[in-house]
Amino acid sequence: MPAVPALNVALGERSYPIVIASGLLADGFDLAGYLAGRDCLIVSNETVAPLYAARVEALLHGRAVHRIDLPDGEAHKNMASFSAVLDALAEQRAARDTTVIALGGGVVGDIAGFAAASYMRGVPFIQVPTTLLAQVDSSVGGKTGINHARGKNLVGAFHQPRLVLIDTDTLATLPDRELKAGLAEVIKHGAIADAEFFAWLEDHVEALLARDAAALAHAIRRCCEIKAAIVAEDEREEGRRAVLNFGHTFGHAIENSLGYGEWLHGEAVAVGMLLAAELGNLDDAARARLRKLVAAAGLPLAPPALAAATLRRAMGMDKKARSGVLRFIVLDAIGEARVDANVPEARIAGLLSRAAG
Amino acid sequence: MPAVPALNVALGERSYPIVIASGLLADGFDLAGYLAGRDCLIVSNETVAPLYAARVEALLHGRAVHRIDLPDGEAHKNMASFSAVLDALAEQRAARDTTVIALGGGVVGDIAGFAAASYMRGVPFIQVPTTLLAQVDSSVGGKTGINHARGKNLVGAFHQPRLVLIDTDTLATLPDRELKAGLAEVIKHGAIADAEFFAWLEDHVEALLARDAAALAHAIRRCCEIKAAIVAEDEREEGRRAVLNFGHTFGHAIENSLGYGEWLHGEAVAVGMLLAAELGNLDDAARARLRKLVAAAGLPLAPPALAAATLRRAMGMDKKARSGVLRFIVLDAIGEARVDANVPEARIAGLLSRAAG
Repeated sequence: MPAVPALNVALGERSYPIVIASGLLADGFDLAGYLAGRDCLIVSNETVAPLYAARVEALLHGRAVHRIDLPDGEAHKNMASFSAVLDALAEQRAARDTTVIALGGGVVGDIAGFAAASYMRGVPFIQVPTTLLAQVDSSVGGKTGINHARGKNLVGAFHQPRLVLIDTDTLATLPDRELKAGLAEVIKHGAIADAEFFAWLEDHVEALLARDAAALAHAIRRCCEIKAAIVAEDEREEGRRAVLNFGHTFGHAIENSLGYGEWLHGEAVAVGMLLAAELGNLDDAARARLRKLVAAAGLPLAPPALAAATLRRAMGMDKKARSGVLRFIVLDAIGEARVDANVPEARIAGLLSRAAG
Repeated sequence: MPAVPALNVALGERSYPIVIASGLLADGFDLAGYLAGRDCLIVSNETVAPLYAARVEALLHGRAVHRIDLPDGEAHKNMASFSAVLDALAEQRAARDTTVIALGGGVVGDIAGFAAASYMRGVPFIQVPTTLLAQVDSSVGGKTGINHARGKNLVGAFHQPRLVLIDTDTLATLPDRELKAGLAEVIKHGAIADAEFFAWLEDHVEALLARDAAALAHAIRRCCEIKAAIVAEDEREEGRRAVLNFGHTFGHAIENSLGYGEWLHGEAVAVGMLLAAELGNLDDAARARLRKLVAAAGLPLAPPALAAATLRRAMGMDKKARSGVLRFIVLDAIGEARVDANVPEARIAGLLSRAAG
């Protein structure tokens, strides 16, 4: 097959390519060339594996391929799934050069990545994301982990993949609800870092919902470019990387309070962005544009029926907090985000009680 | 109290001091000054906590101190204990600036360190080792983890502490068997890296067994110096650091095959060193010196009654292996170690069948 142009996540000796194209799984991409040793473990789930596992295995001819299919859904992003992947690795007598391949959405990628980070204190790892959300966000940047009853993504590791392989054709099988949820993270990238891309999204949200291949490919590439640049600047989120969490403090609290899996991550982030837009210095026109775009993407505009106190308590487990002080990502304009550690408690309470009704 | 001289583990922005002295816990060492935020979690066990937890808590006056006591012993260095520490952190609503303090031996340090590495993808961590083995080896260098039914230390992370606080007075309460087990790792440091220290140990092994304070302090300091230098050179064991595993390929296989906790780690390492000494280019005189020193330390000289095939199979899970090829640490002389990836399978089989009878 012809060479496919790749983005690069520039992290010194941990740098890696993001390959984005249509037909990668069908057309014989040289995935085996990215394995570190003689064998690998494909981590997938019961929904995705029947659709794509055989194709991925075909790209690995000549290698010892093992596979584990996890139950599908955010509710299973937990210690039991993490343990199951570790058990599978031990069972196949995996060594330090065994490669873990995550084939699925963000849940699969996060669990598989955390297991790859932890097995023998770190084995090589490849992401093959099959949902829009994973393709534009969670597969890039090395954040891995599982949920805890007390907090979303509360346990995990930074562990960069050695390749992110995005075959845009996999979006053909994605349910509409998941496509929309992925659009929330697409909108986020524009909102925090690129006003021009945000304007493009306003013009192309219908095309994206209609799964126009060119529009999807452009959106995925632009999000990966934005995320790769931010991650290259601040791999371990000691500063600027935190802006990628726009909408996530509220969003994670919604997911945790409802029970993981009730709302999709992207749905919770959509509402979280609208709440966070009330903070910062966004003018009314900009706030209206954000709201309109979220609505056009078919995403929820208000949180589910939850007590404000419940949400506030769940927000207390946000990983950005320091010694009890919450740190919000706020916008000063479309495309301009910053961390604000000085949002008055009364402001948060007011926002939540108005929103949560 | 007067300033205590400290060793430094030189790892750039991850550098940290190892403070070694008598009376640190009793004399008001400024432990609170090393906390990152307002609160901490002391991870200890049911044996050590009654002896020393109150003293450590006294050094943290003014801070919010939480504590979890794990069951004692290698058999509990597992996923359940790891989860229990994470639950405790979530329960106290720990933030990214909460400090985890490991108070105990190597098992406590390894579990607490892995939990600190994983909670919120990494929170600060302090080691207060109370066994000789932990003071001379496991508390320094950032290796953390838990055992898996299939392999010792199979799951974990590299996570450097911000301080290692060694109060040599804690050795007063250490059972004799544990003291001897610690001496195995002391002997290892001489054997792999310092012929002069090895000779000193030959002269002072009786004093160490008699718990002579000056002798113990010297041995601990020298081991920490040796380990700090090796770790500074190769933090993530991509090369030279592997020599610290001298005796551990055989040793881990013994621990795993017997069931964790049957033999102490140091006991298994003692036998493992004698087996590994049969490989490499050690002359008979040097091998005899190693054997004599291990015997003088009251450590076992032969593996437990296990089938050679059982041990060989357990060795297959050694983390140094690559694509099924074992890599042994061998000695060319006392004080000179290297990695050997070319030990013929027949050599290993012969060694095991002779040793295991």
